[in-house]
Amino acid sequence: MLHAVARAPCYLGALVGCAAIAVCTVYVANSAAQSSTQSQTQAGTASDSSNASPIYGVTIPPGYRDWKVIAVDHLVTNRVDQLRAQLGNEIAIKAFKEGTVPFPDGTIIAALHWTRVPSEDNNKALAGAFPGAKSFVIGSAVNVQFMVKDSRKYAATGGWGFADFKNGKPGDKPLHEACFPCHEPAKAHDFVFAHYAATP
Amino acid sequence: MLHAVARAPCYLGALVGCAAIAVCTVYVANSAAQSSTQSQTQAGTASDSSNASPIYGVTIPPGYRDWKVIAVDHLVTNRVDQLRAQLGNEIAIKAFKEGTVPFPDGTIIAALHWTRVPSEDNNKALAGAFPGAKSFVIGSAVNVQFMVKDSRKYAATGGWGFADFKNGKPGDKPLHEACFPCHEPAKAHDFVFAHYAATP
Repeated sequence: MLHAVARAPCYLGALVGCAAIAVCTVYVANSAAQSSTQSQTQAGTASDSSNASPIYGVTIPPGYRDWKVIAVDHLVTNRVDQLRAQLGNEIAIKAFKEGTVPFPDGTIIAALHWTRVPSEDNNKALAGAFPGAKSFVIGSAVNVQFMVKDSRKYAATGGWGFADFKNGKPGDKPLHEACFPCHEPAKAHDFVFAHYAATP
Repeated sequence: MLHAVARAPCYLGALVGCAAIAVCTVYVANSAAQSSTQSQTQAGTASDSSNASPIYGVTIPPGYRDWKVIAVDHLVTNRVDQLRAQLGNEIAIKAFKEGTVPFPDGTIIAALHWTRVPSEDNNKALAGAFPGAKSFVIGSAVNVQFMVKDSRKYAATGGWGFADFKNGKPGDKPLHEACFPCHEPAKAHDFVFAHYAATP
């Protein structure tokens, strides 16, 4: 039951994320498909296989929370209300800054999704100068998605591998089957919805 | 006239930002108050003085666009609708992660503000799976604010220096006089409104 409960919001979050803003990625380290030697020595355990995304064999790239900012956005559906940030590894950021499309192999984009909640503290602080001002901040973490570029390995899906994690665990196969079709409308931008935010 | 037009939204953006989410900072390099030697050799030109914030003598810290993410938020008033990101230098990020309050000297927090606009492209991509979904993305850059911690230099304002820039130019003195009073409600968190976003 816990599994089913966890999976439903994960599916929603991921599908929406795939279609809306950025992401779904594949981090190539430690997947059995990527390194047979490694898979024989490290992968293949229940722990390892359960931490890789279906179809793409992606695990969470270490340190992604500290990556640089591509952009931020806000998504509302009848089931979610989220503040979101897209971050990139060094290859991704360089490509975004230089406008390189298609993105080079090794690009990884991370999409971090949080609930959006009103901040009464901020609203009180604003009330004097700006009556009626409404501030919305991050409530809690929802899920994280990755797109990893490997033009040969993932040739069937535009060169991108996808992954969606909630509480450190990947979503199921149907969830990941939905990623690439959702990203197809962004084909002109190499299937990436996010655009680099101007520097204020 | 251009000056007046530019100043009005800057004031609004900065005051709202000060009160609402994070920021206003002082970057200490190149201010005459900070380095008399440097001021004699580099500062004192019209170009330098016009690039430092009033009161605090802060200039824009190089590379802030590439700093790590503290949090993101959304602010609406009757005059602005913004997506925002707070980024931190290494000292800031370490303090946020470890929950260090007050923040150590050397902390710099940057608040980047952009207009929030609907994305018709994203909405079309979402329409099939999520009828009525609404995606909002960054429109254009508005302003950037900084808070710099120097407990001795800025003892009169909680240890923080503040700055607000629009198109690379600092706002005026009245704008910067408003920063610290706006941040006072956040005294329990060392006058910082932003909190570190959980890792999804």
